[in-house]
Amino acid sequence: MTKVYNFSAGPAVLPEAVLQEAAAEMLDYQGCGMSVMEMSHRSSAFKGIIDQAEKDLRDLVGIPENYRVLFLQGGGSTQFAMVPMNLMRGIAVGGADGSVGHADYIVTGTWSKKALAEAQRFGDARCIATSVDTNFDRVPDMANIQVNADADYVYICMNETVNGNVLRELPDTQGKPLVADMSSCFLSEPIDVERYGLIFAGAQKNVGPAGVTIVIVREDLIPEGDLPGVPTMMQYRTHADAGSLYNTPPCYAIYICGKVFKWLKSQGGLAGMQKTNQDKAALLYDYLDKSNLFRGFVRPQDRSLMNVTFTAGDELDAAFVAEAKARGFENLKGHRSVGGLRASIYNAMPVEGVQALVEFMREFEAHHSCSSQSI
Amino acid sequence: MTKVYNFSAGPAVLPEAVLQEAAAEMLDYQGCGMSVMEMSHRSSAFKGIIDQAEKDLRDLVGIPENYRVLFLQGGGSTQFAMVPMNLMRGIAVGGADGSVGHADYIVTGTWSKKALAEAQRFGDARCIATSVDTNFDRVPDMANIQVNADADYVYICMNETVNGNVLRELPDTQGKPLVADMSSCFLSEPIDVERYGLIFAGAQKNVGPAGVTIVIVREDLIPEGDLPGVPTMMQYRTHADAGSLYNTPPCYAIYICGKVFKWLKSQGGLAGMQKTNQDKAALLYDYLDKSNLFRGFVRPQDRSLMNVTFTAGDELDAAFVAEAKARGFENLKGHRSVGGLRASIYNAMPVEGVQALVEFMREFEAHHSCSSQSI
Repeated sequence: MTKVYNFSAGPAVLPEAVLQEAAAEMLDYQGCGMSVMEMSHRSSAFKGIIDQAEKDLRDLVGIPENYRVLFLQGGGSTQFAMVPMNLMRGIAVGGADGSVGHADYIVTGTWSKKALAEAQRFGDARCIATSVDTNFDRVPDMANIQVNADADYVYICMNETVNGNVLRELPDTQGKPLVADMSSCFLSEPIDVERYGLIFAGAQKNVGPAGVTIVIVREDLIPEGDLPGVPTMMQYRTHADAGSLYNTPPCYAIYICGKVFKWLKSQGGLAGMQKTNQDKAALLYDYLDKSNLFRGFVRPQDRSLMNVTFTAGDELDAAFVAEAKARGFENLKGHRSVGGLRASIYNAMPVEGVQALVEFMREFEAHHSCSSQSI
Repeated sequence: MTKVYNFSAGPAVLPEAVLQEAAAEMLDYQGCGMSVMEMSHRSSAFKGIIDQAEKDLRDLVGIPENYRVLFLQGGGSTQFAMVPMNLMRGIAVGGADGSVGHADYIVTGTWSKKALAEAQRFGDARCIATSVDTNFDRVPDMANIQVNADADYVYICMNETVNGNVLRELPDTQGKPLVADMSSCFLSEPIDVERYGLIFAGAQKNVGPAGVTIVIVREDLIPEGDLPGVPTMMQYRTHADAGSLYNTPPCYAIYICGKVFKWLKSQGGLAGMQKTNQDKAALLYDYLDKSNLFRGFVRPQDRSLMNVTFTAGDELDAAFVAEAKARGFENLKGHRSVGGLRASIYNAMPVEGVQALVEFMREFEAHHSCSSQSI
């Protein structure tokens, strides 16, 4: 087997132990004579898998009883529509009375910008703070956030995967529900769920394979009754009432997530992961701060622990990606929308991978110091 | 490994060769040093997987160039909304002009009934023929179908998974696009794609694991431009323009589907599968027709080759399921909505499995002949 370190932003590296277990169980899950892929989603075997996954997730994160856990499909992009369609009260779509809902968005990068645009299709969604003017190299000062009195919710993207920033403080929402896209930082450190009304995360970063999205939503925010004009599958109520089994869920993806939850528990839970993630990120950021060639995109206090965005300069970035790949460091190219370089160092990236990357960056800098000085 | 025959209606049995390959490649796909679950969906390795899957599917089915193939999420239940939201022209939802679209549905069982109800949320969807009066023990005579002049499309569920009937003839749609839910018969026999405007199939029956839905849609039916009020993720245009990579697709599920397509080619393609499927179904139906205990639910000419619904009588069905399970025949209970028994004998169910089931049914009948005669 070729040894590579995979710095992909998602789908991303998974714990090797999880993959080994999945391979071993592929044809026969715990002696039941079939693969998890072949099981009826109504079988007791699968019920055991999804129930245990939810229980382990609740334990790990500390999810209070008045929050529901949903395993859905469609990724964050589907949540961009489901959030306004479900949480904007007096929703415009299909609403008989023509009233319009309102929501306040804090735009800190590519994904919150997309979420805002999608929400604007369904009501009055407004950007109340953004760092777009500095190209998302920071997050706005949360102390200055002014939430509108008519807002049905306030929306943030906790960790911007493309831009590499993170919100370390939460806005004062004046009692409005806070909705957080945590796709790229979910399970990377402890969170206080009660500070949020709804949390969602596409699994394909820190949690499992692509194809399942985890939604944690406070019960009282799930609309009662049918929402006119909203597809049944886009209503949180549909999935909450059916325990994520309204229709066939992405069973195999949920099964892998369950294994990741177990693995996280074995690693000291979220507090353990936070320590490891801080150490890994520090290795990379410390080097970036000292380097004469590389520089990080995001100001220090707003840097993501998960997605480290940087550059070696326009002339060297492509060479860096190519040389890195030849040395077994995969997927270091920045997102196509912003360019540059990016190392995603999720939970499952071992510290050795980051150490090896920093070592390689040192070598690269040494080799290219002349060209760097001439820029 | 426990040897079982899995008659689940979905998720369902997969070819053992496919599972073996997947297990072997779990940690290292073709020497690239990572699992398919860990690959960026923008990587050349995954691009190779999805492109090859589409190519093999096109070869297998004979999909003309003016049809697009989409790999989506959300199952048939999501298609129940996407079809009207995209194909009802002058759609009501979010439509500025307040006009309403129209569609004609043929209701032959549980799933077409659900599809109709969902479509009625978005416009004027009408049932133009149904066999509900005889509890879906047949399909309506296609010669008598009257399509409305204002219908934007005509909808059928080709094979009703719960009820066990199949449409062997297609209605004359008077030139209107025919939309077919083929979830439980897709790839079980050859089809003439040009007779349809849109075909969809949740993968978890004949194609692969749950979590991916295949849509085959004629290009001219995909709306140009944005559909107001329709979530971006619910617009076929979004996915068609992005080659199913608008956002992260269910990569691993697509990879498994690709392996199933290769396996189908090795089995003589769809003509080969049809022959095998006819032989397998004949084994079971011939026995049912001769049995004094069991009887099939559906009249002979409308019987599904995939989902064989039958009963041993209310008093014996539960005993049959339990005894069968003890002998390694799994998931023979009928759908909770209709009761009775059901054997789903998809492509990957070996003929030996059906032979063994019939043998067991004979034994069961012999043991229970007294109680059967007393009913």
